[in-house]
Amino acid sequence: MENFTFNNPTKILFGKGREAEVGREASAYGKNILLHYGGGSIKKSGLYDRVVASLKEAGLAVVELSGVKPNPRLSLVREGIRICEEQKIDLILAVGGGSVIDSAKAIAAGHYYEGDVWDLYTGKGNAEKALPVATILTIPAAGSESSTGSVITNEDGDYKRPFDHEILYPVFSILNPELAFTLPDFQVACGIADMTAHLLERYFTNAKPVGLTDRLIEGALKNIMEYAPVVLADRENYDGWAEIMWSGTVAHNNSLNTGRIGDWASHDIEHELSGIYDIAHGAGLAVIFPAWMKYNYKHDINLFLQWAVRVMNVEQKFRSDEETVLSGIEAFEDFLKSIGLAVRLDGVGIDDTRLEEMADKATNGDKRTVGNFVKLNKADVFNILKLAL
Amino acid sequence: MENFTFNNPTKILFGKGREAEVGREASAYGKNILLHYGGGSIKKSGLYDRVVASLKEAGLAVVELSGVKPNPRLSLVREGIRICEEQKIDLILAVGGGSVIDSAKAIAAGHYYEGDVWDLYTGKGNAEKALPVATILTIPAAGSESSTGSVITNEDGDYKRPFDHEILYPVFSILNPELAFTLPDFQVACGIADMTAHLLERYFTNAKPVGLTDRLIEGALKNIMEYAPVVLADRENYDGWAEIMWSGTVAHNNSLNTGRIGDWASHDIEHELSGIYDIAHGAGLAVIFPAWMKYNYKHDINLFLQWAVRVMNVEQKFRSDEETVLSGIEAFEDFLKSIGLAVRLDGVGIDDTRLEEMADKATNGDKRTVGNFVKLNKADVFNILKLAL
Repeated sequence: MENFTFNNPTKILFGKGREAEVGREASAYGKNILLHYGGGSIKKSGLYDRVVASLKEAGLAVVELSGVKPNPRLSLVREGIRICEEQKIDLILAVGGGSVIDSAKAIAAGHYYEGDVWDLYTGKGNAEKALPVATILTIPAAGSESSTGSVITNEDGDYKRPFDHEILYPVFSILNPELAFTLPDFQVACGIADMTAHLLERYFTNAKPVGLTDRLIEGALKNIMEYAPVVLADRENYDGWAEIMWSGTVAHNNSLNTGRIGDWASHDIEHELSGIYDIAHGAGLAVIFPAWMKYNYKHDINLFLQWAVRVMNVEQKFRSDEETVLSGIEAFEDFLKSIGLAVRLDGVGIDDTRLEEMADKATNGDKRTVGNFVKLNKADVFNILKLAL
Repeated sequence: MENFTFNNPTKILFGKGREAEVGREASAYGKNILLHYGGGSIKKSGLYDRVVASLKEAGLAVVELSGVKPNPRLSLVREGIRICEEQKIDLILAVGGGSVIDSAKAIAAGHYYEGDVWDLYTGKGNAEKALPVATILTIPAAGSESSTGSVITNEDGDYKRPFDHEILYPVFSILNPELAFTLPDFQVACGIADMTAHLLERYFTNAKPVGLTDRLIEGALKNIMEYAPVVLADRENYDGWAEIMWSGTVAHNNSLNTGRIGDWASHDIEHELSGIYDIAHGAGLAVIFPAWMKYNYKHDINLFLQWAVRVMNVEQKFRSDEETVLSGIEAFEDFLKSIGLAVRLDGVGIDDTRLEEMADKATNGDKRTVGNFVKLNKADVFNILKLAL
């Protein structure tokens, strides 16, 4: 087990009707709230009205910034930074899914950063401090509601880049599984692929032994695979959504990778897919992760064997570890297909014309590698993309 | 899943040599430190010198209060409260196991409480605020290093009572598995029984479904059973201790009971054993928990079946759920015996002469019940104690 420091301060308020508490919780951070959200879905569902009522009841002043899109854009972040400065914002309240929360985190970190906020995403600069961010989650997927991460897309060049820092942990997050009832099928499936990928990125590690977190990650993966069909079959199944929503948060709140070093190559490669083609992150991961597995399982076949047997419930073929692992990867692809996702590039509308460009961007022109489990150069990434065809 | 609020703010510094960072971490809380510990073991091991050196190097003023015993005493807590007042203590640093940490928490809560600190343990009073407590853990067992709990023994009447409050989360805890290398066999075994019991108290719940936390608890239990023999056979096995130490913290940091309502009857009953007979808490739990299981498994045989099959690895006898569950309980007793613990009262030096007195005290003269999974009255507790003979 690697040495580690763990300190996740996000207060979680989980359960039915908890959004009614947002005003009281928010008032601990000051008077001026930036309400950040996407489009009309929170208005249609009535959530917007309930949130604003709770904030006003607590005597808070609300400024709004809507219009966050999936793969959230840098331009809106810059607008948010201007508003926070002008309106002396004390707390940014993100109401939505991972894109809205990531956009809020970018604004929060950019507020105190003297240079251009994009520097934080390219590694040119670093931040010491951020405005407090709170969230009301509507899409179980990205885990951003209790994570250190934010991913932003720079429209100027189609770059999608992550920034990770402990100042980005939200101060509180409200998780009401009922808010997920109205999600469309495809978004549900993408969310499930995303949280599954967060667990797998952590699982495939060279840190050994990490027995406790191996088992915790395995348990979370099995639980997601158990309840994914439940919520897809019965969209208003509260118990099922509670399992999926809490699993999505636990998958990414850093508790399950204590003492491990995660991989994250699949995320880095996927960012090029959604950066260029603007596809949903979860849909891209469903294509990239199986290909990544096929390309890398020989690096530690015992760990893949453990995953195939313990998580994918593949019966071990004692005559051949490789056959067992490949059956595990096939079972994983079957699971992704069963929830309605494609596992090949053509299924997400990507052909072979820009594979080299994506491999080049992912590795910054072959000047950096991606991944920790196996360090992949441009040729490796290109080969993985070809495997995904 | 039940609605819940989760917010564990304890910063964990885990790994080799991390105690060298104590001065830097502590200095964030002020200048005056109360160093609280037990006897000479931390002096013999050299830990005391390293801790004092780090605190002095950070320019901190150190006042000492040693002498904490297992089943920590109220009288020493009262002395600690006097010292904190007189010396204007800013942070209590507990260096030791659960008893030292629990004693520090009692001092911390008593500092701001206007009445007698024992009120907090009898439910007569409540606390709003506590001095910051930090810990350097030397005994993986109680989980107090990242929990809301403190258990204190009042020598006047041999009452041992718990106080739970979120103000008792330590501000930071340093966990270096190397510090456990010198523990005697019996203490290792008691620690393992204690952390196992913390998981089982949470596992047996009426909240349904709680699929994610079922699986997380199962994983932690399996990991403890995997690594307990490793550290007992090879006392300086760092990797094994890292697994046991981190499992002990995770078992009790409230992350694994999110959405559940734990039982805690076995803890309440055990407190009467160690309150009267001054036996080790873990040794008492190894006796009480199997008896509690035998008395209560019929309340939810499916949950016991899941535990027997998934955790105890008992092959399911499809002809009889009851037979499978009883095999699981037997396997659990075998595990406890394998690490050197007794599973009957005579093995911890307790005969049948004071069973009724213990049942009476546990239920406050049959005026309250213990446990949530099944609410037990005085007669139930008496029957469980008889089953433990």
